[in-house]
Order: sequence, then C-alpha cells, then structure tokens
Amino acid sequence: MGDTVLTDLFAPSRVAVVGATENEGSIGRAIVTNLRDEFDGETVPVNPNYDEVFGLDCYPDLASAPDIDLAVVVVPPHIAVDVVRGAGEAGIKNVVVITAGFGETGSEGAERERELQDIAAEYDLNLVGPNSLGIMSTPVGMNATFGPENALPGSMSFMSQSGAFITAVLDWANDEGLGFKDVVSLGNKAVLDETDFVRAWGEDPDTDVILGYLEGVEDGGTFIDTAREVTDDTPIVMVKSGRTDAGAQAVSSHTGTLAGSDRAYEAGLEQAGVLRVDSVQELFDFAQILAGQPLPERDDVAIVTNAGGPGVMTTDAVGDSTLSLASFSDDTLAELGEALPEEANIYNPIDAIGDADIGRFRDAIDIALGDENVGTAVVLAAPTAVIDYRDLADVIVELQAKHGKPVAAALMGGERTEEAAELLREGGIPNYFDPARAVRSLDALTTYRDISQREYGKPTEFDVDRERAAEILSRAKERGDNRLGVEAMGLLDAYGIPTPEGTIADSPEDAVSAAQDIEGNVVMKIVSPDILHKSDIGGVKVGVGNEDVYDAYEDLVTRARNYQPDATILGVQVQEMVDLDSGTETIIGMNRDPQFGPLLLFGLGGIFVEIIEDTTFRVAPISEREASEMVNDIEAAPLLRGARGRDPADIDGVVESLQRLSQLVTDFPAILELDVNPLVATPDGVRAIDIRLTVDTDEL
Amino acid sequence: MGDTVLTDLFAPSRVAVVGATENEGSIGRAIVTNLRDEFDGETVPVNPNYDEVFGLDCYPDLASAPDIDLAVVVVPPHIAVDVVRGAGEAGIKNVVVITAGFGETGSEGAERERELQDIAAEYDLNLVGPNSLGIMSTPVGMNATFGPENALPGSMSFMSQSGAFITAVLDWANDEGLGFKDVVSLGNKAVLDETDFVRAWGEDPDTDVILGYLEGVEDGGTFIDTAREVTDDTPIVMVKSGRTDAGAQAVSSHTGTLAGSDRAYEAGLEQAGVLRVDSVQELFDFAQILAGQPLPERDDVAIVTNAGGPGVMTTDAVGDSTLSLASFSDDTLAELGEALPEEANIYNPIDAIGDADIGRFRDAIDIALGDENVGTAVVLAAPTAVIDYRDLADVIVELQAKHGKPVAAALMGGERTEEAAELLREGGIPNYFDPARAVRSLDALTTYRDISQREYGKPTEFDVDRERAAEILSRAKERGDNRLGVEAMGLLDAYGIPTPEGTIADSPEDAVSAAQDIEGNVVMKIVSPDILHKSDIGGVKVGVGNEDVYDAYEDLVTRARNYQPDATILGVQVQEMVDLDSGTETIIGMNRDPQFGPLLLFGLGGIFVEIIEDTTFRVAPISEREASEMVNDIEAAPLLRGARGRDPADIDGVVESLQRLSQLVTDFPAILELDVNPLVATPDGVRAIDIRLTVDTDEL
Repeated sequence: MGDTVLTDLFAPSRVAVVGATENEGSIGRAIVTNLRDEFDGETVPVNPNYDEVFGLDCYPDLASAPDIDLAVVVVPPHIAVDVVRGAGEAGIKNVVVITAGFGETGSEGAERERELQDIAAEYDLNLVGPNSLGIMSTPVGMNATFGPENALPGSMSFMSQSGAFITAVLDWANDEGLGFKDVVSLGNKAVLDETDFVRAWGEDPDTDVILGYLEGVEDGGTFIDTAREVTDDTPIVMVKSGRTDAGAQAVSSHTGTLAGSDRAYEAGLEQAGVLRVDSVQELFDFAQILAGQPLPERDDVAIVTNAGGPGVMTTDAVGDSTLSLASFSDDTLAELGEALPEEANIYNPIDAIGDADIGRFRDAIDIALGDENVGTAVVLAAPTAVIDYRDLADVIVELQAKHGKPVAAALMGGERTEEAAELLREGGIPNYFDPARAVRSLDALTTYRDISQREYGKPTEFDVDRERAAEILSRAKERGDNRLGVEAMGLLDAYGIPTPEGTIADSPEDAVSAAQDIEGNVVMKIVSPDILHKSDIGGVKVGVGNEDVYDAYEDLVTRARNYQPDATILGVQVQEMVDLDSGTETIIGMNRDPQFGPLLLFGLGGIFVEIIEDTTFRVAPISEREASEMVNDIEAAPLLRGARGRDPADIDGVVESLQRLSQLVTDFPAILELDVNPLVATPDGVRAIDIRLTVDTDEL
Repeated sequence: MGDTVLTDLFAPSRVAVVGATENEGSIGRAIVTNLRDEFDGETVPVNPNYDEVFGLDCYPDLASAPDIDLAVVVVPPHIAVDVVRGAGEAGIKNVVVITAGFGETGSEGAERERELQDIAAEYDLNLVGPNSLGIMSTPVGMNATFGPENALPGSMSFMSQSGAFITAVLDWANDEGLGFKDVVSLGNKAVLDETDFVRAWGEDPDTDVILGYLEGVEDGGTFIDTAREVTDDTPIVMVKSGRTDAGAQAVSSHTGTLAGSDRAYEAGLEQAGVLRVDSVQELFDFAQILAGQPLPERDDVAIVTNAGGPGVMTTDAVGDSTLSLASFSDDTLAELGEALPEEANIYNPIDAIGDADIGRFRDAIDIALGDENVGTAVVLAAPTAVIDYRDLADVIVELQAKHGKPVAAALMGGERTEEAAELLREGGIPNYFDPARAVRSLDALTTYRDISQREYGKPTEFDVDRERAAEILSRAKERGDNRLGVEAMGLLDAYGIPTPEGTIADSPEDAVSAAQDIEGNVVMKIVSPDILHKSDIGGVKVGVGNEDVYDAYEDLVTRARNYQPDATILGVQVQEMVDLDSGTETIIGMNRDPQFGPLLLFGLGGIFVEIIEDTTFRVAPISEREASEMVNDIEAAPLLRGARGRDPADIDGVVESLQRLSQLVTDFPAILELDVNPLVATPDGVRAIDIRLTVDTDEL
C-alpha cells in the first residue's frame, strides 16, 4: 500500500483513460463513456493513435497530459507496466489497472504483476488491480468502470474481488433504490487490498457501512487489527466465499491463490468484528439496517401486526435469533388494552387484527416503542382493504424518529409494497418481504452494537523463559528433527504452562534416580522422534513403583527397538502420575494458516474433538478475554464448569494456558503445529500431559 | 371428515353465499363480488332481506335455493349454526364457514363449534372453517374468499391456517406470476383439516405440489400415514410455525390450542415425507422447482456461469447441501476445451468467462447436461454487454427439455431479469436471484426424489408377552403408583428387551437365595416408588459378594427408612452385574405428545443427552428401517460403530430394542413416559439396566 492518502483515489478532478478509444465493444470506449456521462471532473483520453476521443482532446501519453489525479489503464498487459511506470514518473499517485493478464494467468503474468508492485513501491502509488472492473465514487459522479450500470448515491461503500459480482449487484441495487458512496473492483490486489479500503472507508465520514465480497484476505493479522479498530465506528459486512472444500478449490482455480482454511477465516473475521454473511441478500439486508437505523439499547423486540399467522413466524424468528421477545410493562398493557379492540392480542406479538386501520396501527406502534422494556420493533402487515401501506410507511417513519429506536418493517405482498418500501427507505427503514429477514437484520444490528462496544484489551505479556524455549527448539534442529514429542515438554514449562514433574532419563539407573525424586508411582514413556504413537507399541507404562523402574526402562527400550530397529531413542521420560479421573481432558493446540498465521484450537479431549468436533478457534495472539471466550464457546463447556455433580475445573488455569500457548507460538514462527493433548483440568489446576509439535527447521 | 368426495368442494356448479349483500365494506359483498368476477358457475345470493344482490336473484334461505353444490356462510355466529344445519337438510354437502366467533373466542364459541361438528357428522358434510377466509379453485375460476386478490391458475395447491398469510402470499405470487390450483383457508379446522386436504390433493391429477402453512396438526398419526402415501407421487412442502418456545406460545394465544413439542413435529413431518421450510420464500422456491422440473437421477450438479465469483458462491452452496459437484468425464472436458476459449475454466464450475455470448453458453450447457455423470445443473449469469438474458432463457428451456434433467437458473440482476424469468417460468424453470437459493431448491428436489422412493415397510410385530406386561401395569394400578422404577423391569423382559438376570427380594433370606442363583457378584437396589433417585441416598450397592448380601439388604432398607420413614418399600432388586466399561451407555425412551402420540427418543447416555443434546426422535410405531435410522442419526454414532479402537457394539440389538419399545408403548397408551437408562450396548448384546416410567392409571 502506498502512503499517499487513499481517499484521493475517489475524489479526482482529472481522470486520464489510457487506452481511450471510440471502438465499438471495447473496454476503453466503455470507460470513457461511463466517465463522460456523469463525472463532475474532467475525462482525459490518452492514446497515441488519436487526437480526439468523443470530442475530448486526446494525449499521446501521460507525460504530456496535464494535472492528472487518477490514471485508468486499459492498454494490453505488455504495455500496461510501462504505462504505470509513466504514471509514477509523471507524479500521478492514483492508478487503476483494468488490464487483465497478470498473476491470474501463469508465470509470465505473475512476473509482470511483481513489476507492477515494484513500480508502485518506488513511486508510492495507490494502485487498484490489475484485472479490475474499475472504481466508482458517487459524490463526484465518477464511474471509472466498464460495467453496464452506474451506482446510485448512498452511504454504503463496497469492494469486491469479483467484477461480475459488482455488475450483478448494481443491476439489482439500482432497481431496489439502494445507493453507494464508493465501489471498488479489487482485481488481483497486487498493491491495494481489502485492508487498505477498510482503513480508508473507516476514516471516511460519508461511508456508513463497509461491504465486501472477498475470496481471500491477503494478510490476516493486519486485517484483524485494522478492522477491529474500524468497527468501533463503522460496521463491516462481508461475503467470504470458498467456505466449503469444493468452494475453496473453486477459489483456487479462479484466483490462483492458496486458500486458507475456512475455520481460520471464521475465527479471524469474527475477531476482526466483521459480520460475515453467506448470500447477497443478507449482505444488503444487513447493510440497509446498519446504514439507516440507530443501534438498539436493548435486545427486546416488540412485534406489531395485523396478522396472527405471520406474527407467529416472526416470533419464531426471534426465538432463532440472539434477540428476545419484549415483555411489556403493566402500563403498556393497560394502554394497549385501551387502544385496541377486545379481540386483539395485547401481549407481544401485538395482533391488532385484520380490521386494523392506520389509527390503530399508529397507537399500537407508538405504545410499544414507548415501553422502556422495548429495544427494537418489527412492524408486520398483511394486505387488507382497510390499510394503505403508504400511510403505514409514513407512520412507521414518523414513530421511529419520535422514539429513536431501530425499527424494521415487513409489509408483505407484491407490487402494493413498492411505494411504501420507497417511503420507508427514504426514512432509513428497510422493508423485508419475509419477516424472518427483518428479525435477522435487527439481530445483526444488535450484534454490531456489541462489536462496536467490545474491548478485547492487549494480549497479556507473561514473564517467560524465552531463551530456554529457543534452546529446546535449536537442539531439535541440531538433531535434524522436525517432529517433536515429550522431549519438548520443557517448552511448556519455559512458558509457564504447568507440566507434571519429571525428566528424560537416558539409562535405567538415571530412571531409578529420577523416580526416587518423585512422590508415588510414576509414568514412563519412550522418547523417540521416530515413534509417534507410543501407546500402540506399548511404549507407555503407568503406575510404575520404584522397584520396577529399572526393568521398565529396559522393557520400553526393547519394545522400541523391536518396533523399529534404527529408531533414534532419546531416552525414557519418567513423569509424576496425574490422576486423570479427577479431571477433564482438554486439548489446546495451534496450526499455522497461510493467511492468518497461528490458529489456536481448544476443545475437550477424546471423542469431543474427534467425533463430536466440538472445538473452537482463534487467531493468535489472543487477549485474556478471547481465551476466556474460547473456553466458554464449546458445547461441552458445562462439563468444565462442574456439570453432573462434579467439582468445577480450574477454568482460569485453562484460560491462562491458552494465553501462554498464544505467546509461545507468536514468539516462535518456526513452530508450524503444536498440540498439547491432553491438558488435564482438575479443580486444583491444570497439567499438560503430552505434547507434539512440528517445526520448520529452516526458520530456527 | 365427511365421506363425501372432497374434490366436489372445489368444482361446484352453483355456489350459494349465505349473507350476501351489497353493503360497502362487508364480507358478504366481497365474496359475491369475487365470485361474480371470474367464476365459471353460478353465484346464488341467499339473504332474507333482499330480492336481488348485484342483479342476481336472491333467495331467503338455502332450502328455497335450487341445486346448490357449495354454501358459503357469512352470517353472524349465532345464526351460522342453523344455516349449516339448513344446508345439511337441503342435501348440500359442501360448506365453507367464513364466520368467526367459534372455538377461537372462548367457551360459548367452543360450544358452537362442537354443534357444527355434530351437524357435519350427521349430514356427512365437507365443512371448511369456521373462521376461514374461504376457498379458491382456479380451473373453475372460483374465488369464494373475501381476500383482495384472486389466484392465477397453476398446479400448486395451498392450504393455510392463517388467512392473512394467504392474502400476503397471493399479492406477492400474482406479481411473480406463480399460479395455484386450489387454495384453502383452513380456519379453525372444526371438521376438515390438513390431513383431508393432503389426501384429496394427493388424488388430484391437477395438483403437482401441495403447500401448507400450519400452526398445528390435528391428528399426527393419521397425518403421517396419509402424507407418507401421498408423497410417493406428490411432494408436500410446509411451514409449521411455532417452532421455538416463544413461537409456540404465540400459536397458543393465536389459535387457542395446545402446541405439541417441536421435536415431535420435526420427527413426524420428516417421517411423513413432508419437506419442512421456515420461510415463505423457501416455500415457493421449493414449490416452483418441484412443480416444474423432473426428478434428478443423480446428485451431481454442474454449474455453468460467465462469472467466477458467483460461481464460487454457488459451489459453496453445493458444499453446504446434500448434493455434490459433478466430476466431468474426459470426453466432456475435451468437448468443453474445444468449445470454450483458453482462459475459460472447463472444470466444474464451468466459467465461460465474461465475454461469453449465447453460442458459448449454449455449448457449455449442452455439453454439461450431456455428461452422464451430471444429474442436475445450475445456469448462473452476471449481466454483460454480450449476453441478452432473454436469449439465455430460451436456450436454457430448450436444453433442459432436450436432456430431461432438472435445471435451476440464477440470472442475477434487477429489472433486466424479468422477461427472462418469465420465459424460464413458462418452461417450468425457476429463476433465483441468489444462486444459493437455486442450489437449495435442487437439493429439495433431490430430497423429494428420495422420499418418493423410500420404503419404510411395516413395523415388525414381535412375539411378546403382552399379558404379562398388562399384569405388571395393573399391579401398579392396584398399588396406586403412577411412577414406576426397577420393579417394572419385567415389562422390558415381557417385550423381549434383554435385562440382567435378577429378581426383587422381599427379605434378606430371599435376597441371599436370589444372589446364589446368579453367577458372580451382584448389584442390589432399593425398590420403592417413593425414592426416585436411588443413588443419591446410597440405595444402590455394586459388586456385592454372596456373603455380604444379607447385610446389604438390611442396610439398603435402613437407608430408605432413614430417608423417608413412610416410604413404600417393595423390596430390594438383586441383579446380575453388567460390566458397564465394556459397553456404551445408550438411552431409549418415550414421551407422549398431544398431537403425535408416542415419541421415541434415542441417544447416548450421560453427557451426550444431558449436555450435548445429541438425541433423535421418531413417532411410534416405527419400522426396522426407522429404528436403524435413529441409531445412525446421532452425532456420536461412530462410538457405537467402534470408533477409537473399540469393538463395535451390537447395533442390531439396539435397533431391535427400539422397535420392541415402540411396540410396547403402542400397545399400552396408558404409558405416558418411559426411559430405559442406560441400555448398555456391548459387542455381545444389549442390556437394559434401569427403567423409569409414568402411567395414566385411569387408562389401565
């Protein structure tokens, strides 16, 4: 990303189109035409073959074109790189490369894309693309794309990794009357990526909601940090496609990039405060209410309707959401009883029944929104002879403004809803045909309220023995091991994650002496990088008394030799017995995601992880609050809290272990994967019983 | 339900409107007007106050009106009952009662509703309502409702328990061009209910799909039997609202009926073969494809698009569904390679890229549908300058017909899609703005194919000792117990569910002698209807050797007396030890649902049921296949099949136990609730360790 102010990209006075032409069906023609139609500034064609394009003076190159703020490049790929360099040389800071034939097409294209990146770095360019549909900004009437539609003005800013997605969305949004501030087709994201636009739009007072269609995030960590800050004030709603295995493969073949795991995206986007959606409809359902309505102070929804059946469906939708159905105060019930006929239902959902006219609707909505127990409302109507939806829309807008609480409308029907929907939209209130969509949108508004208020705090910096950890890892490198087991338990000890007392003995005598230092019987495990599944070969002995330690040592080594004669044997671990029955087995672990880096795992041991898949993930580093969220996220969390008559386990110990693991894997990027399995949590504390990790020895 | 042929209701020649009037704003006026507008037959006003209504001869009563096939009643409630009796006396078999003020309004109304039911039974009437919006049937142009819109002709038949839902849906459906065969507002379902219409429309050659909005099912068992038969040929799609606790409460206050548990509905509707949906949109998304497209022979989907991004989203939707992405044959790939430009993606999803014209789309769709690995296709497009959606619609319709495989379209955009969507609709192909909806609809089509083909078979009739079971229950009645425990283990034994060897001893000597008959140590449990949680008072002793049995007996009785001095003590159960460690604890149980009757439960014991809620339900009686489905439904099923190095448990034994339990609770409606917990499943068989049940002693 260039340091140049990115907002300049969207507010140029003079835009050059390099490759401008009048040729029918060409992209150069489409862009000049789109710009000429509505742009407040000047459109400057650049093309050595013409003196004029559509009556505008045409320049042979950027160097000769005066005072250009933004250059849009549509020349063939082999020329495009030189044109961009020319822009840099001419002091132009903003460049949109429409041209395709770069990273998406193979090694030659990838090389060209690297050249573009170098030039952008050298001249500090804001460069969009290549392989972009272009950009739009409605305040200056700029449509620098080759798409068939321009955007209507509005306060949503929208980025998309798919140009086709933009054309499809605009065609529909224009029909629905939905407007945008800026629109960007990200293309190959050679220079500017999603994080840059999140940052820029976060600072843009004219952008109320940031929307995105992404197939990948370039740098997960920076994205999280940036988005987390932006979402304090500006909501972000995104489709991240390639969620499923099949979808991820389709992304790879579409963009040529390696897709990170969806659980990393799921965790990372959640930590970033992004509202993730799966469909276009939900993207704009959420966007509209976020752009138009205030944040609710309470989660309690009032439903006002003239139709019992749809009222029940709406109530179901509330039951499915994180919202709750408001309980009305006695005063409210008394007022409703006064205002509504006897057959009406004054309890939530309020059913003003089929013959409700505008006056009755007005009373019911006004009373409901006036109740201090009510945070938000859904106004729901079926068509009847006695209600004109336009009147109802006016009343909803008026009462929403009066009470200052968010409202969603579900005036059901076909054409008869259109004018009413427009009146509502002008008042910032979305109308949804399906009341469940209204409820889900209010739910998203409430979730965003929580996001905007949440304070994760910084990750705790524990006092750890980093040098000792480094030494353990470097010893592995010396041995040429990239897969480590119990011999690396010291890593956990160095980072303050409790481990059982014990050492690795390299002779039977040594083992006996080690066992004597430990109270009670011991556990003995063979230590060999070549033997991953110790239990399978009888490489673990539990409850060994002091008198049996010598023989046990020899037996373990013999078993290992029998199993694999040339196995490297580092010795036998002699470890304090931990009473597994009194505790709950958990797993804490990490693997490194290509986009997001260290992805932490938490779950309960055994069947819970392997069969039920009851696990949760976060991108490290994590704060105490995030670690605590992890422990509470899993379905089996009640087991740790002491379900079924057990004593509660030391949850604080688990939370702290997760944070310490986070610090360890953040400090050592060479650790590619790490599992502590089990980490036993008893009422008195936690103990890491076993560890397995993979390291990148080149990084050590 | 009357025995009269129900289809007559929808094809009358002469319809009387009792309460016909020209009064502005009245329901009587609305119905006469709606009928007069389009009805092929004759509309006959009945009202003693007029000679003419809208120029039609008006009769004073039904007795004097000649040859009426259907009477629509809109007179006030206190007169309506007499009018219906009059219809019966006049030999009119079909009656729609629009009038409200019956069961939904309190005891007086409920009494009136019972009168209606008696009259309907006496005269064998097909009676719709009361409290109904009316009925429609498009083949004869009949709109006998007071709603503002008539339906367009089509092949979907639609019933709704909410009249407002019908008006909202019709307003929208007319706009979308969606047509109906019959429409029924069920009202209070005093006589005709959902089962009657499912049966009638199942036999109606003009109904291709049955749709419903229900808030409850009257008789779950009959509904299941009927729907199961109908869905062999005709798909049923339904919204059942009141899914959530809040929603169920809203249903109660809306309809005045007790809502059954949603898990009974979930199980019952699934067993019935009903496709259950949660939103209006999905109701019609599924309905359209079910009405218009053939059933797929394979689950493999081909995606053809001109837009990579939306292609990825569609692929994600396939990943979320039960469908799979088709792998193309080598021939197909070769043909696609020939037909498409180099930059295109010939692997599924086929991306014909942005400059795809109609010829290229045609080639890609034709080749994809021609692949024998392909079962269905989604054709997906973003708007471009080179493709006219109308041309694309024509090509899709033509190629769908050529290949005979189901196709869904997702031509994305706003107004520009409208004409194309209409062309597609005429060809029976739905168009969805959101490609995920297209995929979900194809998924529903595939699910329906499986439903139409499935064969549950009859429930097995096991050879059981019904008399012994009856005797055990009647003994409980004699004692006045309605809650039974281990003393009722004999019930299981009588029905062939394996129990450990053992008896109930009523003296220490008796216990000693019982223990001597059992090999090895025994388990002893206090048997008392007053002590539900035996373990909590130390009422269970495990691993008692023969020499300790005498003392153990006395100790157990003392503990019980200390806990509750006046407890009824039936003795001490002396039972064979079952090695719980070698098996998996499961729970099989039943509770009786108000609508569906005996609802069977299956899950794994302990935390799986209590914390993870990993359970599954079916309405009894169940066939072997359904019992087997239950065992495989739960997430933890791999544990039974031998996950994590265990020996597989005797799954056949569990399946058989479920069927035997099904037979037991079907044979004895007096059993209100029953839990066998645990039923231990070992590799060698199953054993029921404990039982608890509640009985209705009045039913015994």
